[in-house]
Amino acid sequence: MSDRKNGKGAATMAKTEFVIKPGTQEITMTRVFDAPRELVFKAMTDPNLIPKWWGPRDHWTKVDKMDVRPGGTWRFINGDSSGEEYGFHGVYHLVDAANCVVVQTFEFEGAPGHVALETMRLEDLEGKTMMVQQSVFQSVEDRDAMVQSGMQTGATETNDRLAELLVELSKDKRAG
Amino acid sequence: MSDRKNGKGAATMAKTEFVIKPGTQEITMTRVFDAPRELVFKAMTDPNLIPKWWGPRDHWTKVDKMDVRPGGTWRFINGDSSGEEYGFHGVYHLVDAANCVVVQTFEFEGAPGHVALETMRLEDLEGKTMMVQQSVFQSVEDRDAMVQSGMQTGATETNDRLAELLVELSKDKRAG
Repeated sequence: MSDRKNGKGAATMAKTEFVIKPGTQEITMTRVFDAPRELVFKAMTDPNLIPKWWGPRDHWTKVDKMDVRPGGTWRFINGDSSGEEYGFHGVYHLVDAANCVVVQTFEFEGAPGHVALETMRLEDLEGKTMMVQQSVFQSVEDRDAMVQSGMQTGATETNDRLAELLVELSKDKRAG
Repeated sequence: MSDRKNGKGAATMAKTEFVIKPGTQEITMTRVFDAPRELVFKAMTDPNLIPKWWGPRDHWTKVDKMDVRPGGTWRFINGDSSGEEYGFHGVYHLVDAANCVVVQTFEFEGAPGHVALETMRLEDLEGKTMMVQQSVFQSVEDRDAMVQSGMQTGATETNDRLAELLVELSKDKRAG
C-alpha cells in the first residue's frame, strides 16, 4: 500500500461539486475518484455493477435494460423497503469507450415526458479520474424541479457508493 | 375546393416563428400547416417522404437510417451540386404517434460531440396543425453557433417545402 499517493479513505472523502446557475437549464456535477478512468468507465457501463452503486443507500436498484451502444436503451428500477418502485429510462446517443464519454437521454417515469440530455466525461488526472456529468433540461422549470427533488443529496450518496465500489474493484485487481 | 376554409396558397404563406432568448440554450420554432396532424406526423416520420422536404431546396437528402421507435437511430445525408455532403444523426427517445410527439437527439457530423435534444409536438388546430419544435443545446455557445450557421433560413425553407408536400399529399388523399 506504500505506493499509494493517498491514505486509506481518501477516495470516499472526495467531494461531489455542483454548478447550478440561476435561470439556466443545466446542472453540472463533478467528482474525483481515486481510480483509473478505465475502471470508473467499467463501473458506470457494466450492468452487473450498476446495482452495487446506483441510487441512495436505502434503495435497491435493478437493471431492467442496459444496452450500452448508440441507439441502445437503458432502464433502471429503484425501490425501497416500503415497496415503492421508481423507473428511469433513456437511450444512448454516444458511447465512446476510448475517450470515456457517454451521451444519453434520461427520463424519470414519475414525471413522464420530461427528458434531460446527459453528457458524462471521464478525465484522467494521473491515475485518478475526474467525472464531469452535465444534464441539460427542456426548461429552467424542469431543472429547478430536479434540484428541488433532492437530486444533490441522492447524487452525492450515489457517488460515495461508486467511490467505495472502486476501492473494492481496485483491491480485486491488485489481488488478481 | 369550396369547403376549404382558406384559399389556395394559404398553407405555404404561413410563417415559421422562432423564439431565441439571449443567454439561454434553447430554440423554439413554431409553424402552422394547413393539414391534419396525422398527415403532418406521417410526413415527418416516413423515410420515403423525408427526401421530399428535409433540407434546403438546392440540396438533396438521402435517408441512411430511420428507425422511428424509442432507441431507434436516424441518419440523414444532405448534399449539394458541388459534391459537398453533410451528415446528421441521432436517436429516438420517444415516439408517441397517438399524441404526435417525438423526442430525439440531433448531431451535425461537421461538429461532432455537440448534441441537441429535440422535442417535436403537433397540436390540432381544428384541422390545421401547429408544429412546436424545441431544441435544447449543451451550452449557450452551441445554441448561438447553430443560430449563426443560418439555421433559421434553412429551417424556414424546410418548413415551406413540407407545407408544399402536405398540399400534394392532401390532394392525393382527396383524389384517392
